[in-house]
Amino acid sequence: MNYKMIFWVASRALRLEAALLFVPLVIALLYGDGMAATFLKSIAVLAMGSGLLSWIKVKDQTIYAKDGFMTVALAWILISFFGALPFWFSGTFPSFVDCLFEAVSGFTTTGASILTEIESLPPSILFWRCFIHWIGGMGVLVFMLSMVSLGEGRSIHLIRAEMTGPDVGKIVPKMKNTAKILYSIYLGMTLLETVILTAGGMPLFDSVVHAMSTAGTGGFSIKNLSIGGYGDNYFFITVIGVFMMLFAMNFNLYYFLLARQWKQIWRNEEMRWFLLIIVFSTLCITVDVVGLFPGWQEAAAHSYFQVTSIMSSTGFSTTDYNLWPTFAKTVLFLLMIIGACGGSTGGGIKVSRFIILMKKTMAEILRLIHPRAVSVIKLNGKPVERETIHGVNTFFTCYMLLIFVGVFFISLNGFDFETNLSAVIACLGNVGPGFGMVGPMGNFAAFSGGSKLLLSFYMLLGRLEIFPILLLVLPMFYRKK
Amino acid sequence: MNYKMIFWVASRALRLEAALLFVPLVIALLYGDGMAATFLKSIAVLAMGSGLLSWIKVKDQTIYAKDGFMTVALAWILISFFGALPFWFSGTFPSFVDCLFEAVSGFTTTGASILTEIESLPPSILFWRCFIHWIGGMGVLVFMLSMVSLGEGRSIHLIRAEMTGPDVGKIVPKMKNTAKILYSIYLGMTLLETVILTAGGMPLFDSVVHAMSTAGTGGFSIKNLSIGGYGDNYFFITVIGVFMMLFAMNFNLYYFLLARQWKQIWRNEEMRWFLLIIVFSTLCITVDVVGLFPGWQEAAAHSYFQVTSIMSSTGFSTTDYNLWPTFAKTVLFLLMIIGACGGSTGGGIKVSRFIILMKKTMAEILRLIHPRAVSVIKLNGKPVERETIHGVNTFFTCYMLLIFVGVFFISLNGFDFETNLSAVIACLGNVGPGFGMVGPMGNFAAFSGGSKLLLSFYMLLGRLEIFPILLLVLPMFYRKK
Repeated sequence: MNYKMIFWVASRALRLEAALLFVPLVIALLYGDGMAATFLKSIAVLAMGSGLLSWIKVKDQTIYAKDGFMTVALAWILISFFGALPFWFSGTFPSFVDCLFEAVSGFTTTGASILTEIESLPPSILFWRCFIHWIGGMGVLVFMLSMVSLGEGRSIHLIRAEMTGPDVGKIVPKMKNTAKILYSIYLGMTLLETVILTAGGMPLFDSVVHAMSTAGTGGFSIKNLSIGGYGDNYFFITVIGVFMMLFAMNFNLYYFLLARQWKQIWRNEEMRWFLLIIVFSTLCITVDVVGLFPGWQEAAAHSYFQVTSIMSSTGFSTTDYNLWPTFAKTVLFLLMIIGACGGSTGGGIKVSRFIILMKKTMAEILRLIHPRAVSVIKLNGKPVERETIHGVNTFFTCYMLLIFVGVFFISLNGFDFETNLSAVIACLGNVGPGFGMVGPMGNFAAFSGGSKLLLSFYMLLGRLEIFPILLLVLPMFYRKK
Repeated sequence: MNYKMIFWVASRALRLEAALLFVPLVIALLYGDGMAATFLKSIAVLAMGSGLLSWIKVKDQTIYAKDGFMTVALAWILISFFGALPFWFSGTFPSFVDCLFEAVSGFTTTGASILTEIESLPPSILFWRCFIHWIGGMGVLVFMLSMVSLGEGRSIHLIRAEMTGPDVGKIVPKMKNTAKILYSIYLGMTLLETVILTAGGMPLFDSVVHAMSTAGTGGFSIKNLSIGGYGDNYFFITVIGVFMMLFAMNFNLYYFLLARQWKQIWRNEEMRWFLLIIVFSTLCITVDVVGLFPGWQEAAAHSYFQVTSIMSSTGFSTTDYNLWPTFAKTVLFLLMIIGACGGSTGGGIKVSRFIILMKKTMAEILRLIHPRAVSVIKLNGKPVERETIHGVNTFFTCYMLLIFVGVFFISLNGFDFETNLSAVIACLGNVGPGFGMVGPMGNFAAFSGGSKLLLSFYMLLGRLEIFPILLLVLPMFYRKK
């Protein structure tokens, strides 16, 4: 294990975070909300922390896959910890555990909150909440690597550990350029959403933070009622609904779009299944909730919004879907587990993993009939590597076992079963709100400190797709050489 | 596919069922409950059905693994269908779907009921409900094969498809003898429980039916309040609690016990984990519910009973655990998913599958660190075959996907989420009662006909461990040669 290099990269990530804190500092000064000192203090602490780490001298810059996992896990834990400082220094949060929960929820783009009242917070703090969604969405280290070059062999392991989906690929030969292209598309789409929302009448500040929150598929809003805070504004509902869907799709597709490689787009099985599931779920829910709205168009709009919000793991809401009939809620519940597409900013298990699991299961069942049959599992027309299939299987098993373990501990709080199960799944899948007490109009404030730490840990597990964090905490990781 | 042989075996199974119906017939005559005609009619219909099938002449008696799956699946569907006839002819059930649900629930040893009032039913009908638990527990075809010899190569495929657990082994070289030994142990233990319960003051009839229900880990009782119908009788609670645990353990262990092979018993990892989980869960629940009982001994007794009842997938109850605190309920919920040991009469995913899954997952995670490491997964000190590991993975994935699909459809009934999820898991795991509306004091009467059929299908899927039934319904099974 190359510990020196691991800490070196972490120190660079913290330096980047210090730089990013200047953005909310400017907001604080612009709005004169009295939070300038808060951000300056945070920057100072970060500079010290980063400085201490950068004393380590690195001779050997080699990074293997396991170092990559370790680096990303450590960087994310540190970034979340220091990202909680502005919340803590602002004095608007009840405890440091709450600040940490909110920061982890922000960076991991979960969007679960312990706040009971949002609108009274200073604008710069509200901005920071959504800004970390945006940073965390595409990845902190990916952002770093789009600017600093670490050399091909090193970058690839870091990016693999931070990006989502079963099979992380490069779109151009150089990793640095791939990161740059992805971030440019990401920035471009965020700006586009901001412009459209502003043009539709949303105040500029609101448009910016909601666009960042959508882009990272995070879900923090600056309104207590989330997007419902603007009333039944069907323009906002439609625009944000569509953008949540777009940000939940593999970003490689947008590169192919820019490069006019139409065949590559159409060949993408995951995208087709993703769209099919959205259409099917929207239909199911619309039929189930139509009686709760003035007409079927309104029902369809809210259904579509909720479907894309949950499946993309954003977690915005336009209405209290916790009051919807069981069937509609169950569909949303299942979408929470399925999640978004690989290579997107969204969470959950990912559509492509489910496709691989389904095909693998089918192949195994067929083997019961034809024991000597050799089956090749294909995704997007290409054979899936054995390693990837093994990885998907292990991921799914871990995911389910983590849900079981999580529900066991969270149930110690004594809340109802629906609340506990959905809280665990919503945190692990980086969705944010669940059902019951943690529904769209609820929050995570009532959980014990221990539960909040466990759920924060789950958010990190979900965002980094389990293995990096698991490797960090498994003690055997250190023992065996 | 050897269809002729499949139907030939099915016709033999129906003939066996007709013979078994003479037992409740005798009960009906003894008690003079007016049900003699009901059972005679059922026997007549069965004789006709079996007779029609036995016209098929079998030339080639070869059975491959796939034929074995198919035979067992078909036999179980037919046996359940004809086993519903006494309920239907008795005129005490609301509809034929309800009769079918009850019969499938009986044979699969689920113990989920659509009856709202049990105690007023004729004794012979009550007897039949518990008798089919006993028959289904160890397996209808295993019973048949313990009497008729089909030849080694043929029997093994049938027994593999009907017995539970990831790795079905012979205990003596001949399959027929293995089946005979298992059934003798099964019968012996059932008689032992009957004697002990009767000695403790339970009426003979009650002892017999409850012993059969325990042996099959079924859960049908003749009391509306299940074992709680005898008041807080701690003798019954302890005896049935212990026997539920014994019947949930691998029957091979009892053979080793008789053969005094102590090492083989102690080497059984699954048994050790099973006992450990029971002790741990009982402790957790006792601490959580102690305030609801007069003292900790009472709390511990009821906790132990409920833990063994749910983990063994029996489903008896001594108290309405649906009213217990969330933590206690969550522990029971997780036990429902884990299930009993392989090679027992119990349901669920099985402890051994979880052990293999855990070890496999650990090995895969270690491979991320040491890509060239070769790991051998061992169970009970012996390496587990690759095929078995693949099978366990596929089983777990199928199991989870089936839960998701089941909850989707069952939620159309509009009941609460806890009811729907626990109903699906309780049926798939052959547990019986769940939580909420289908809790220990509730029943499945309110579900729609379609839902009852789906849940019946799930009970069969669970009892035959998914693949036989899945192979029967997958149309590709027929297409490809």
